[in-house]
Amino acid sequence: MQSAISLSLHSPSPVARSAIRYSSDACLPTPRSLRFCGLRREAFDLKASVDASSLRIARLNLHSKRSNLSKVFAALKGNGAPSSGGFDYDLVIIGAGVGGHGAALHAVEKGLKTAIIEGDVVGGTCVNRGCVPSKALLAVSGRMRELQNEHHMKSFGLQVAAAGYDRQGVADHANNLASKIRNNLTNSLKALGVDILTGVGTILGPQKLKYGKGDSGDQVITAKDIIIATGSVPLVPKGIEVDGKSVITSDHALKLEFVPEWIAIVGSGYIGLEFSDITPAKDGKPVQIELIDAKTKEPKDTLEVDAALIATGRAPFTQGLGLENINVQTQRGFVPVDERMRVIDANGKLVPHLYCIGDANGKMMLAHAASAQGISVVEQVSGNDHVLNHLSIPAACFTHPEISMVGLTEPQAREKAEKEGFEVSIAKTSFKANTKALAENEGEGLAKLIYRPDNGEILGVHIFGLHAADLIHEASNAIAMGTSIQDIKFAVHAHPTLSEVLDELFKSAKVKVSTSNTVAKPVPA
Amino acid sequence: MQSAISLSLHSPSPVARSAIRYSSDACLPTPRSLRFCGLRREAFDLKASVDASSLRIARLNLHSKRSNLSKVFAALKGNGAPSSGGFDYDLVIIGAGVGGHGAALHAVEKGLKTAIIEGDVVGGTCVNRGCVPSKALLAVSGRMRELQNEHHMKSFGLQVAAAGYDRQGVADHANNLASKIRNNLTNSLKALGVDILTGVGTILGPQKLKYGKGDSGDQVITAKDIIIATGSVPLVPKGIEVDGKSVITSDHALKLEFVPEWIAIVGSGYIGLEFSDITPAKDGKPVQIELIDAKTKEPKDTLEVDAALIATGRAPFTQGLGLENINVQTQRGFVPVDERMRVIDANGKLVPHLYCIGDANGKMMLAHAASAQGISVVEQVSGNDHVLNHLSIPAACFTHPEISMVGLTEPQAREKAEKEGFEVSIAKTSFKANTKALAENEGEGLAKLIYRPDNGEILGVHIFGLHAADLIHEASNAIAMGTSIQDIKFAVHAHPTLSEVLDELFKSAKVKVSTSNTVAKPVPA
Repeated sequence: MQSAISLSLHSPSPVARSAIRYSSDACLPTPRSLRFCGLRREAFDLKASVDASSLRIARLNLHSKRSNLSKVFAALKGNGAPSSGGFDYDLVIIGAGVGGHGAALHAVEKGLKTAIIEGDVVGGTCVNRGCVPSKALLAVSGRMRELQNEHHMKSFGLQVAAAGYDRQGVADHANNLASKIRNNLTNSLKALGVDILTGVGTILGPQKLKYGKGDSGDQVITAKDIIIATGSVPLVPKGIEVDGKSVITSDHALKLEFVPEWIAIVGSGYIGLEFSDITPAKDGKPVQIELIDAKTKEPKDTLEVDAALIATGRAPFTQGLGLENINVQTQRGFVPVDERMRVIDANGKLVPHLYCIGDANGKMMLAHAASAQGISVVEQVSGNDHVLNHLSIPAACFTHPEISMVGLTEPQAREKAEKEGFEVSIAKTSFKANTKALAENEGEGLAKLIYRPDNGEILGVHIFGLHAADLIHEASNAIAMGTSIQDIKFAVHAHPTLSEVLDELFKSAKVKVSTSNTVAKPVPA
Repeated sequence: MQSAISLSLHSPSPVARSAIRYSSDACLPTPRSLRFCGLRREAFDLKASVDASSLRIARLNLHSKRSNLSKVFAALKGNGAPSSGGFDYDLVIIGAGVGGHGAALHAVEKGLKTAIIEGDVVGGTCVNRGCVPSKALLAVSGRMRELQNEHHMKSFGLQVAAAGYDRQGVADHANNLASKIRNNLTNSLKALGVDILTGVGTILGPQKLKYGKGDSGDQVITAKDIIIATGSVPLVPKGIEVDGKSVITSDHALKLEFVPEWIAIVGSGYIGLEFSDITPAKDGKPVQIELIDAKTKEPKDTLEVDAALIATGRAPFTQGLGLENINVQTQRGFVPVDERMRVIDANGKLVPHLYCIGDANGKMMLAHAASAQGISVVEQVSGNDHVLNHLSIPAACFTHPEISMVGLTEPQAREKAEKEGFEVSIAKTSFKANTKALAENEGEGLAKLIYRPDNGEILGVHIFGLHAADLIHEASNAIAMGTSIQDIKFAVHAHPTLSEVLDELFKSAKVKVSTSNTVAKPVPA
């Protein structure tokens, strides 16, 4: 664990401060995802949902050669036919966060009888304490920032006489969003017939587990396959007392009942100040933060702030899982898995029919990565071998402007190139000459492409600029599909759009192989 | 020409009205594009530009087997070595709008000695009178709309006491943007060594043309290949008197010196009112619009407004081109071309070494289509056969929220399916359950996928919602690359992003073939 921690203090106007706090919160190492695939209609209209799921089941039967009728019936009744092989379920997922939810949806689509065990709230950190409410707050802060930036507004010819905000209104927007999405999720799982089992899930042995309060009332069930999807919790370094009011983690940040005038954001980094102790505010006294020199361990200063947000990372949550019952030892807290998310025991052997996805395995602590891993596991247990290419998974940070990335960083690419003996090239384009960005007075930003000039392979793309979190998908799709630069550079982009930044990026790369002709198709008559 | 014209009247508050006017203007049948590929550095930093172009030239030489040194030298001096075959230029482009500019850039990259003839202003309609200034105005109107929508702001917990705008400030933002981009364009052409020839370009015969004022001072030049890229102008139906002040086209709309209280927007459509005559405002009297019943031709009503915007389409501009000298007859004003943009003469034969791109050929009146056609022609004259797939070219309309599309519409797909004997399926997803859209209070919107369930081919995608103009590129790239749904559905999308609407769209499609394994790659060590 990293013990040297950087400390940043912010003291602008109250509103700007709140924006900073939430931005930073959104940049915790766990941007998280909630896959809604095929959920919307289910959540909003039960009838449509049943139709949709039965149609899917029907389609799948073309391959599985099992009876359409029984599957459709099963889809209407619950989720798939009774488990084959005498198990209570084909698949039991421990944890109904983003990863578990994505896996459950795909399992139903594949006709698996599925249950999900949740010991807290459906939606997990992402929906309830993470990216969902924080995005609501970011939307507010973005608008507030603009309203208060007189120079920016004037450059558009706009005048704003007075702008304020209502703390409760802002908080309501975030809470309403979280609650709406949590309900959508729960309803959709129910509509698709996934059994939601309440309590802590504990693995008793291969293909066997229990759930409940951890007492004699627990129910024992069997499953052909089990997925651990228990996620993570905020990591609080030793010596910090979190009171949830003045010294908080991201779990509390979204529920703060006051707007602190001064807030310290404590995040990991490499600055030469080590932070050792935080005392919460008490009896009218402020939060005390002692700063110690990282090298000499000498005290340097004491800071007094109204609140401190501890954003020093996240730790896997595996409490009560019963890993000891199957001889699995965590590594730095994480459940060890192979590239197919199969759990590895203390002897280095695969635990049969046990998988772990998402933050708990530590492979890539992003919600949409958890969901993708879940889908990959379901593909496998349905008989299709599948290995997820993590280098094609995009990541986004919802700062202003946004940051996004996919694949390797430049140092990673150069290290790989050194090892495997190929050349690495870099291309860059700017938002400064993008018509749409300039029209919006948002010309700050750039995009960077890391690639192999010998064969046009895209190794990584990094974007910093307006809508970067959306723009990255052209690049991540290209990596996922193995599309080379000499092909994608001929894909036409609408004008005037921000996506032209990517178009220019691909066009400006210098690939040594000829243009492929995959995009040169005759115009249909 | 369509003579039945619909008429819509708008009379909300001054600001909302100006927003409507510009939105509508942006939706003229000619959203236009300006390709900046590789321009930015050239425009902002001459040294970098020369490096970039010389590097490109050097790369191309690996294939062309011509001397690296002479090409690099040429790139530093001007644009490519002297034309082979005794011509003054390898390529002469008539028209420095978006199409001509895109073609010129690619020609320099290919090492062609290139000239561009411009009779008006560099950048053409798009930069000077079209999408560029209109996007600046749309950015303003979007912010103004939000400021004035009290309910919307309150839902975020925000309060705005008073908001106004300054007409001149708004106009300045638009004019500054147009002028900035026009200058970038001109500088970049110069920096890459493209000769900018001023005047009207007239074709005298195969590979021979002149430019100038159309008098005895005209200069005659020869070119191995010639591209017509003269674009289009607003189409004004007979009987309408455009004075540029109260009765205007898009050419004037962006320079209006007052904000009309009532404006009529006259656009083509299929509503049963035929419009016959507009009399401009004069001597304090308003603009008079006579409305006539389309069937009976009986007068129905007379409207009086402060201004009327004539948005009834655009007509190709081919004046002074000298098409008669090469026996080419326009068809409904358009220059006839084949699928490789080669000009066809009155006898149905190809005119050697003559191409026409962009609005003047009428294939797809979009600026980025013109640019793509230009790039395709340059590929051809450089020895690489290339046919542009117009079904992979996206289009966007910058309304609030935006609209975008690529490929076939549902009726077009069904007609094709009928003819060729395949099945068509439709999938739809909504912005209503997209976390990012909801966080922004922008849940209005949907995406539609038209596809072949038998093989997973994407036939068309239509999006209406926040950032639709950017989001469409995942779909247009997929069509361009021939990526099937069963592959792209496994591409991972960052959460919470608007792009997840597309993710869900692909995932909800019901394709009858098995998942391909192109995306299942082992994780690199």
